[in-house]
Amino acid sequence: MERLTVIKVGGKIVEEDKSLQQLLTDFAQIQGYKVLVHGGGRSATKLAEKLGVETKMVNGRRITDKETLDITVMVYAGLVNKKIVAKLQEININALGLTGADMNIIRSDIRPVREIDYGFVGDVKEVNGKKLSLLIREGIVPVLAPLTHDGHGNLLNTNADTIAGETAKALATYFDVKLIYCFEMKGVMEDITKENSVIKHINKEKFERLIESGIVKDGMIPKLENAFDCINLGVKEVIITQSTDIQGINGTIIE
Amino acid sequence: MERLTVIKVGGKIVEEDKSLQQLLTDFAQIQGYKVLVHGGGRSATKLAEKLGVETKMVNGRRITDKETLDITVMVYAGLVNKKIVAKLQEININALGLTGADMNIIRSDIRPVREIDYGFVGDVKEVNGKKLSLLIREGIVPVLAPLTHDGHGNLLNTNADTIAGETAKALATYFDVKLIYCFEMKGVMEDITKENSVIKHINKEKFERLIESGIVKDGMIPKLENAFDCINLGVKEVIITQSTDIQGINGTIIE
Repeated sequence: MERLTVIKVGGKIVEEDKSLQQLLTDFAQIQGYKVLVHGGGRSATKLAEKLGVETKMVNGRRITDKETLDITVMVYAGLVNKKIVAKLQEININALGLTGADMNIIRSDIRPVREIDYGFVGDVKEVNGKKLSLLIREGIVPVLAPLTHDGHGNLLNTNADTIAGETAKALATYFDVKLIYCFEMKGVMEDITKENSVIKHINKEKFERLIESGIVKDGMIPKLENAFDCINLGVKEVIITQSTDIQGINGTIIE
Repeated sequence: MERLTVIKVGGKIVEEDKSLQQLLTDFAQIQGYKVLVHGGGRSATKLAEKLGVETKMVNGRRITDKETLDITVMVYAGLVNKKIVAKLQEININALGLTGADMNIIRSDIRPVREIDYGFVGDVKEVNGKKLSLLIREGIVPVLAPLTHDGHGNLLNTNADTIAGETAKALATYFDVKLIYCFEMKGVMEDITKENSVIKHINKEKFERLIESGIVKDGMIPKLENAFDCINLGVKEVIITQSTDIQGINGTIIE
């Protein structure tokens, strides 16, 4: 099968002109089919501040009331997404900005209220890998904003990591998929204080040992669990790296 | 050739939930291929106010500095466009929200500074009718926001009437195109004070006479000139009507 790379980048990198330009130049270097998934949380928080709308986060997730939803739609699907698309077009990458509502690409369910009511937040239910793969084969590079829809007319704020993972899994039927998660660190670190302590490879067995020894803990555990889930469901390779290395050459390979 | 309807609706109609719902229900009734072009100026002005950004209009056009551009991108490509897309998906219309940057569908040039510097405002240079027609034949309903790009990484605020006209012309190679402009009035009026004085048909000859007699004047003249330009360049029919009658049954037919 042909290769496809799904790259997820956080908000910070796409929100500053200089780092965005570097990212897009690096993105252009990636051979074969590709998909970009972006965040935009910082800009959303900044706009909320300017509008006097309080930002409430629980476990790193944004509580999304009606006003906050509108803010995320404006920032993610508007400001951030379209800026990326226009800049990719400039370097002859045929980008198409999408939310999950567009072409019904990603359907989600509103997150059920348990201890916390997250509001208009969606848990991904289905990614239409077939439709997405047809677009991709036509030479289009999808740029996915972290928003989905419930099929009942509502947009839902959706975690960008989840969108990247679910999209990678859905596309694994059609391509050999490599999924690259960019974050602040160089990869999964043996010792967080030592820059050169990136763990090169992690398989399921090593993962268990890293948890036991306390090297992998907190937020890194669900990140890696999600990566293994992708591998189990057909994604060839997941790499955790930083956004200055989107090819993942110096990152951690999960396999 | 197969039929295609391009419908342009103004900001007001898409910005209020009730009128939007009615519009989309009416839109669903239209047979054959279709494209929706929307405005969003009122919401942009409202957001600008909240953000303390002054709105400057000249000849009905928004002076678009960098801050104002960001506001139009957030409102047109984000808030308004994605709300329409999600609501169309709810009624099983396979909508895809697009700016001109997406898939390089509409390229424009920044408007040259003459007496007035409009800022980041684009004059349409080229609509990629072929790409758009391929999407449409796949069952996709494009929803166009009034934004284009210049190919050098910049988004440009672009008049929605112009986008509708240029898109209709570009699609006329591939379809029998009907272009419907919705505005506040029932159509072109013989007497603006008399609700039932809609002029049913206007051809070029009649247009000249209507100008001579002073019945057609001011902003209606460029609107009609634009309509005749579409007819001359292959669009089968242009209808000027109001948004409660998007099939244009009671509007003015330009032919």
